[in-house]
Amino acid sequence: MSIAVHTVIACFTIISICCGAPLKPSNTCGYDVCNLGKPDKLNVHIVPHTHDDVGWLKTVDQYYYGARNDIQHAAVQYILDSVIPSLVENSDRRFIYVEIAFFWRWWLQQTEEMRNTVRQLVNEGRLEFISGGWSMNDEGVTHYNSIIDQHSLGAEFLRDQFGQCGRPKLGWQIDPFGHSKQVASLFAHMGFDGLFFGRVDVQDYTERFKAKTMEMIWKGSANLGEDSWLFSGILPRVYEAPPSFCFDVHCQNEPIKDDPQLHDYNVPERVQAFIDAAHSQATGYATNHIINTMGSDFQYENADEWYKNLDKLIKYVNAQQGNGSDVNIFYSTPSCYLYALNKANRTWTTKSDDFFPISFNHHGLWNGYFTSRPALKRYERYSNNILQVTKQLNALSNVTLRHAFFPLSEAMGIAQHHDAVSGTEKQHVADDYAQRLAQGIDSATYVINEAYRKLLPKYNHSLTIPAQFLCQFSNISECLPIERQASFTLTLWNPTIHPVQHIVRVPVTQKYLIRSPTGSTVAADFMSISDQVKKIPGRTSSAQYELVFQAPLPALGFSTYYFESKSSLADNKRTEKSKLDQAHNEACVLQNQYLRVEFDQQGNLKNITNQERNFTVQFSSQGFYWYTSFPGNNSRPEFQASGAYAFRPLTPNPLPVSSSRNITCTYMDQVQTALIVYNQWCSQEVRLYDQANTVEIEWIVGPIPIEDGLGKEIIIRYDTDIRSNQYFYTDANGREVLERKRDYRPSWNYTVYESVGGNYYPVASRIWIKDNQTQMTVLTDRSEGGSSMHDGSIELMVHRRTLHDDSQGVGEPMNETAYGTGLVVRGRHVLILETPQLSASHHRPTAQQLFMSPLYTYALPGISYTDYSNNYRQTWSSLNESLPYNVHLLTFDQLAANVFLIRVEHYFELNEDATYSKSAQIDLDSLFNTLGKIKDLVELTLAGNMPLSEMKRLVWQTNDHQSSNLKLTKSNTLKSTIVSLNPMEIKTFQITIE
Amino acid sequence: MSIAVHTVIACFTIISICCGAPLKPSNTCGYDVCNLGKPDKLNVHIVPHTHDDVGWLKTVDQYYYGARNDIQHAAVQYILDSVIPSLVENSDRRFIYVEIAFFWRWWLQQTEEMRNTVRQLVNEGRLEFISGGWSMNDEGVTHYNSIIDQHSLGAEFLRDQFGQCGRPKLGWQIDPFGHSKQVASLFAHMGFDGLFFGRVDVQDYTERFKAKTMEMIWKGSANLGEDSWLFSGILPRVYEAPPSFCFDVHCQNEPIKDDPQLHDYNVPERVQAFIDAAHSQATGYATNHIINTMGSDFQYENADEWYKNLDKLIKYVNAQQGNGSDVNIFYSTPSCYLYALNKANRTWTTKSDDFFPISFNHHGLWNGYFTSRPALKRYERYSNNILQVTKQLNALSNVTLRHAFFPLSEAMGIAQHHDAVSGTEKQHVADDYAQRLAQGIDSATYVINEAYRKLLPKYNHSLTIPAQFLCQFSNISECLPIERQASFTLTLWNPTIHPVQHIVRVPVTQKYLIRSPTGSTVAADFMSISDQVKKIPGRTSSAQYELVFQAPLPALGFSTYYFESKSSLADNKRTEKSKLDQAHNEACVLQNQYLRVEFDQQGNLKNITNQERNFTVQFSSQGFYWYTSFPGNNSRPEFQASGAYAFRPLTPNPLPVSSSRNITCTYMDQVQTALIVYNQWCSQEVRLYDQANTVEIEWIVGPIPIEDGLGKEIIIRYDTDIRSNQYFYTDANGREVLERKRDYRPSWNYTVYESVGGNYYPVASRIWIKDNQTQMTVLTDRSEGGSSMHDGSIELMVHRRTLHDDSQGVGEPMNETAYGTGLVVRGRHVLILETPQLSASHHRPTAQQLFMSPLYTYALPGISYTDYSNNYRQTWSSLNESLPYNVHLLTFDQLAANVFLIRVEHYFELNEDATYSKSAQIDLDSLFNTLGKIKDLVELTLAGNMPLSEMKRLVWQTNDHQSSNLKLTKSNTLKSTIVSLNPMEIKTFQITIE
Repeated sequence: MSIAVHTVIACFTIISICCGAPLKPSNTCGYDVCNLGKPDKLNVHIVPHTHDDVGWLKTVDQYYYGARNDIQHAAVQYILDSVIPSLVENSDRRFIYVEIAFFWRWWLQQTEEMRNTVRQLVNEGRLEFISGGWSMNDEGVTHYNSIIDQHSLGAEFLRDQFGQCGRPKLGWQIDPFGHSKQVASLFAHMGFDGLFFGRVDVQDYTERFKAKTMEMIWKGSANLGEDSWLFSGILPRVYEAPPSFCFDVHCQNEPIKDDPQLHDYNVPERVQAFIDAAHSQATGYATNHIINTMGSDFQYENADEWYKNLDKLIKYVNAQQGNGSDVNIFYSTPSCYLYALNKANRTWTTKSDDFFPISFNHHGLWNGYFTSRPALKRYERYSNNILQVTKQLNALSNVTLRHAFFPLSEAMGIAQHHDAVSGTEKQHVADDYAQRLAQGIDSATYVINEAYRKLLPKYNHSLTIPAQFLCQFSNISECLPIERQASFTLTLWNPTIHPVQHIVRVPVTQKYLIRSPTGSTVAADFMSISDQVKKIPGRTSSAQYELVFQAPLPALGFSTYYFESKSSLADNKRTEKSKLDQAHNEACVLQNQYLRVEFDQQGNLKNITNQERNFTVQFSSQGFYWYTSFPGNNSRPEFQASGAYAFRPLTPNPLPVSSSRNITCTYMDQVQTALIVYNQWCSQEVRLYDQANTVEIEWIVGPIPIEDGLGKEIIIRYDTDIRSNQYFYTDANGREVLERKRDYRPSWNYTVYESVGGNYYPVASRIWIKDNQTQMTVLTDRSEGGSSMHDGSIELMVHRRTLHDDSQGVGEPMNETAYGTGLVVRGRHVLILETPQLSASHHRPTAQQLFMSPLYTYALPGISYTDYSNNYRQTWSSLNESLPYNVHLLTFDQLAANVFLIRVEHYFELNEDATYSKSAQIDLDSLFNTLGKIKDLVELTLAGNMPLSEMKRLVWQTNDHQSSNLKLTKSNTLKSTIVSLNPMEIKTFQITIE
Repeated sequence: MSIAVHTVIACFTIISICCGAPLKPSNTCGYDVCNLGKPDKLNVHIVPHTHDDVGWLKTVDQYYYGARNDIQHAAVQYILDSVIPSLVENSDRRFIYVEIAFFWRWWLQQTEEMRNTVRQLVNEGRLEFISGGWSMNDEGVTHYNSIIDQHSLGAEFLRDQFGQCGRPKLGWQIDPFGHSKQVASLFAHMGFDGLFFGRVDVQDYTERFKAKTMEMIWKGSANLGEDSWLFSGILPRVYEAPPSFCFDVHCQNEPIKDDPQLHDYNVPERVQAFIDAAHSQATGYATNHIINTMGSDFQYENADEWYKNLDKLIKYVNAQQGNGSDVNIFYSTPSCYLYALNKANRTWTTKSDDFFPISFNHHGLWNGYFTSRPALKRYERYSNNILQVTKQLNALSNVTLRHAFFPLSEAMGIAQHHDAVSGTEKQHVADDYAQRLAQGIDSATYVINEAYRKLLPKYNHSLTIPAQFLCQFSNISECLPIERQASFTLTLWNPTIHPVQHIVRVPVTQKYLIRSPTGSTVAADFMSISDQVKKIPGRTSSAQYELVFQAPLPALGFSTYYFESKSSLADNKRTEKSKLDQAHNEACVLQNQYLRVEFDQQGNLKNITNQERNFTVQFSSQGFYWYTSFPGNNSRPEFQASGAYAFRPLTPNPLPVSSSRNITCTYMDQVQTALIVYNQWCSQEVRLYDQANTVEIEWIVGPIPIEDGLGKEIIIRYDTDIRSNQYFYTDANGREVLERKRDYRPSWNYTVYESVGGNYYPVASRIWIKDNQTQMTVLTDRSEGGSSMHDGSIELMVHRRTLHDDSQGVGEPMNETAYGTGLVVRGRHVLILETPQLSASHHRPTAQQLFMSPLYTYALPGISYTDYSNNYRQTWSSLNESLPYNVHLLTFDQLAANVFLIRVEHYFELNEDATYSKSAQIDLDSLFNTLGKIKDLVELTLAGNMPLSEMKRLVWQTNDHQSSNLKLTKSNTLKSTIVSLNPMEIKTFQITIE
């Protein structure tokens, strides 16, 4: 049942290049060939590298081509063109490459001869892929699903083109604006032996440099033990060369002028300066090995300039050993530096918290980007939802169209970049990311149609299906193709492996009779679309209403609802509930079986009562506030402006966006709502659905006014009587949750310079506060910055508009506009009021459903319901048994005709739920119910590029006598298809079916 | 007696690399392999090139290494590093390289493998050397002797390393600031088939573009006929690529984005823009061939960027031929473009004047540089004098130390660059040029010593000679090593082949008895050094006097004078003339056998009478004036400032530097002088030597005051009663003379925008005005700008100090300082007042002696005169017969032990002298009197890199039915050693002696 994985891994067809030379086991690309220096010297690892942002000031393709060099001189095509011959020229030279989005672009344009040259360099360890994601992902606002995907995409490309020598051995997060434990844990599970990064808090850096603890063992997960540990190192100068030793075409440092016949011979001065710099750096590091990152943004556009001077530097610096110098320098790679540290045979300190938020100076923190470009952040999350559904549909329909939706995989890989979803790119680049996602979704839509072409027809599989289309403007309650249509269908794909009760919202121009998959009439509320929505700039829809109803959806399957215009019905009987109770500016109460939500007549949320648990949370206030952005000129830290990266309020106290508000409560069957309008540009609709034990708050913010010359950063604040006692909790990348404490850092004695900004943390999916009795959890539909600035309070920054650049490079204020005015953003919070003991059982699945929502596809079949139901399946599940509630199907991808990649995960943490925090078991065969019997099954590392059995990570010792030695309980091949999962465990399999 | 030249040419030992691969005759590097396009298309020759200034904003070595990129990003080492692999990559690609000063630096650092790669590219015509001088010499202020030398230096290197395929076939003066007929003529005699340049007057350009006469036959010499004709072309955009088609790493134009999968595909737009640009350019040119110079200053630092995009451009533009496009583009070289024009089989207009001065806009002319940095200009001329003497001494002493004074040859080659001797470089670069010359002179001093070690000893050739040293500060009457010495010797080498009567000036601290070579006591004037000299900043000498005496020197030989301190003489008798007559502020007269020079008591020069010819020239005024520099900001042509390149006066009338002056006339035996002090910073000493028929005017100017905030440009003006009727005459590069007419251009209908600047011409050696009876010729000791702004007037700009940059690139005002104040410059004019018929017989030899002065070397033998004269030769000539007066020995260089390079020239023009304008004959054997018998003798082209017999220049037809077809009367090998020379003819020989 098991065979070696490299015999079954399919060629990477999505890039139209089949695998390269047959994989030859190589002894020349591993740690064994590393230069480990001299034991009695200070060994300086010279690491030539380029940092190629996958979009930032320019778009990814502008960077690739070197277009728009008026914005920034950067041209990746020439970097790779030039590095290869420089490596060929001298076998001592080394180079690392990181961003596969660029490498892939370049690779496609190369001749087979050039590819073979590159393959040889890789096989000889002279060119090494490090990290090897499609991009160097952001760590603050990315979702773990997409981090894994983007690393897998790069890893797959590298494996297919370069075999085992192409496998990245460590993480290289040199530019991201903070570092996540979750990323460390994921990297450990990808088989990485270590991680290097460039940015930490300036206070942290100072302390660590002094203590020689720049390198440490990071315990990535509280749930997963040593498997999640990752040796992590802080680079000495972010990722720059020592001062005056940048030899790039874009630097102005002096070259090594070593011809004594020419003027300005400078070898002695350059050598001494280098030796001094090495000694200086060594004072902060623990061993007699240090790393010099020789490169920076988009460097090596003419690699010759770097290498020619580095060759000389190495020659002349080492020549000084003859005169007693203790400095030994040589070309190296991060892997070899890591290996040298590993071989140092010493113990290391450990770290269990994360690196968020980090300051770059006393008044500047990388924290504004937690919220910057909220619309793009949501669109990225939404795109992932579509991508996962598309993978599932492609796999389950067996249409083998993986290559066809590659544009979406690629766009998502790019979107993970630390200047993409982070919101820290220029506006035109943000537009390009969105365009890529849109184009990717178009490609996915094709695959979705092809899949449904196989899944929808009841009998005749050659039956044409009505074209399935997405309504991508549903975020502004707009779906033009169905407007005024006599009939249409809505097919909802549930990408989770559990049945869900989904609230459907369909913007319509008229009333419709809705038939469920069984043919029954669906009870739906016919709700007016609020003025706040209708006035959103750019909305062209004439839909005045939304039909809202509850749809029970099968696990990993679909249901189709048939909409028939009531005016077109012969019997125009009213089937919808006619009741419409409304209260304007009166105290009102939303109430269902579980919850009771009370407002006063000023529109203030006063109480939420959990009727089941019989407790009430009192709200002293709830709603919109703004921080005034600090309008500095960045000339000194005190004048640090708030901008795309940095959130810095002018004063610590946010102001309410209005002194009064209007409230309208509406009671319908499916949902009760309180629409609270704060002002022209802030409103929220609090919704309580029938049967729901969560409260949904849909907010609309914008255009943020700036006529007063002040930037504004808008938060929604929930002020309760929960005695949270300085603590609050935020998730990492949508997964494990970290405890936060106000004005505190676990790792060092923290001095507060920014009382607000220093307490902002990334909230990728949830934030909570709690006391012994009560936990209030707020789930978000995208990443937002969040904090708890007072006991009992949670605040989430939902939108920002600043008027100053914050001088960290982007060169633009964070001032999004659309249709000639500030951008309007609409989003959702979901509130869960539960006991601490029972909260996880709600926030885990609810958060799962937020990022893995059912996919809406519409169609205009143009046939009667009867004809439709005669010909087409209206509901279908790929599962025929119920699967454990605490297991999530993270990935279901088809690699080739009978080959699949599966990731299943336990998505509860240890001890957070009495039931679901226990181990789970799942029979993978159940997922292949409709496809066939599993023939082969190999467990892989997380990125899917290596059998787990082959993963042999370096072993590290901590200074408290622990070892990172793997427990090695892994089964490389499975005895059966039944997989056991511990809390927060993700397992990856390559599965071949018969 | 004759053998093929390529068997005797020695290896280029001066660069320590012996010749490369044996020269294989190649059919792959000539015109035959040119792509001549398609007859029915507009053929665009794509010519990739880099323009590498041999110093400008940075020094030559800073440019080579890419140092000081903060000043200007430029790094030649990487250009050549990167071009070669790009050429290897695609055999269609072409590149030209021009400046051998850089190529040589690079070549020295290459492996033999790389050299062979380059040799192959050259052999295949893929890399072509164009022009091939050590630098791209300036044309306005350079001297023909040094132009020939610097081209020979480059040509020799190329011949030795690359053989016949390395021979440059045409001139490429794309950046110099005006173009000289003399250069055209020299180039023709170097065997060049054509010349391209970038800068002409904007009026000229407009007219020629309209008339399609951008390309023409330039008749380089009125004396030398068709041999001096040179096809010359004006490039369309100086030397830049068409707008938006610069693909250099330092450009910001859009690359060709041809992957339709990536964003911003731009092939159709780029192709159309190129086709439009080609059509537009073609409207100004005569044939269906046009040239696109693809490059600019220091471009191709990463050649891949250019070539990758040009490859694409060529592919896609030519693809449009399938859609009816008439544009055909291909890689080419200037040679191939030239050849295509030659093959066009058409006639061309001719030009007989030159391109001076030229305007870059209506108010900006390239004319200030005629004078800029007068001290550097003199130092360069002085250095050439030393170089030629050194070559002669090396050759005649047969010490074969050519490699040892290569630094001076190299420094002189560099100094010819159009931003070197031109004065248009930054100050620190000017300092570097001077330093190089000084270091070169040091190297020459070694050779001079080695030569004298063989020439000086009378009997014992192993006798140590007293170290010969130069007194390089003689320009400020300072020679520290001889100060207070009891005795010293002065050896004077006469580099001309005629005996000369030389006026010696030796700055001394005390009186000396001087013994001539025959032992007789020399009559010398003991003259006080004037306060004007003594106060020159930086002068540290305590010498208060100069000994002035007349020394008759042998042809091509030396005389030694022995100086013995009078105080050290036993009989301290006064041997010098004691007479010292002086007149202060009185009218006075200087008078000798030939001339009578009269001053009034206000210090005004009133008359000069030629007593022999019996005429008097009356001076209405003579002396120093200043033009106020235009202080513009260059934002519009009207605001053009005066600066390093451009001389633009604020008003057309120069102001006298003072309203009164002091005159002191001094009468001694050897010389009578009138010292006229105008103010603190302007003075002149008018000198009439005994027996002299010329008047010497030594001027001291500076520090030019700028405290009033005004730049000043200082002229010396000679206002006479000569009826010059708008005409005046200036030389070209120290050789042939052109007629100038005020406010007039021979080539087009000239519109005057700048009444003064437009009449300024370069004066490299002489300027004159005349009427039927009288000619006043002024000889200069360096290049100066000169004009005749009124009939009877000659003015020469001797110094300038401006406070504004003139926006042509140098980025500095022309504001030289030294010792914390404005630079003081001292120089000489020599006035000749003769009949027009007899002037040449004076100005030709006098000018020759100005640039080929005797070389002064001092020594401290520390022995008595008797001992000295017993052991050392005190006079010696290498000639034993007198040689024709109208022949000049331009070059006498030893290539190898028995191999010499000789240039002899007739240095009179046709019809300028009844006697000397006739043909001359010289027996070359007479030059080798002391060396041996001539065994082989081969006449070479002017640059010495090809036997004249092998020179086959392209033939061109003029539109007046003349043909450039060579008369081919050349004898490739000589029947005898007797050479016949026509006026202005230069002949070059390689001579092997037995």
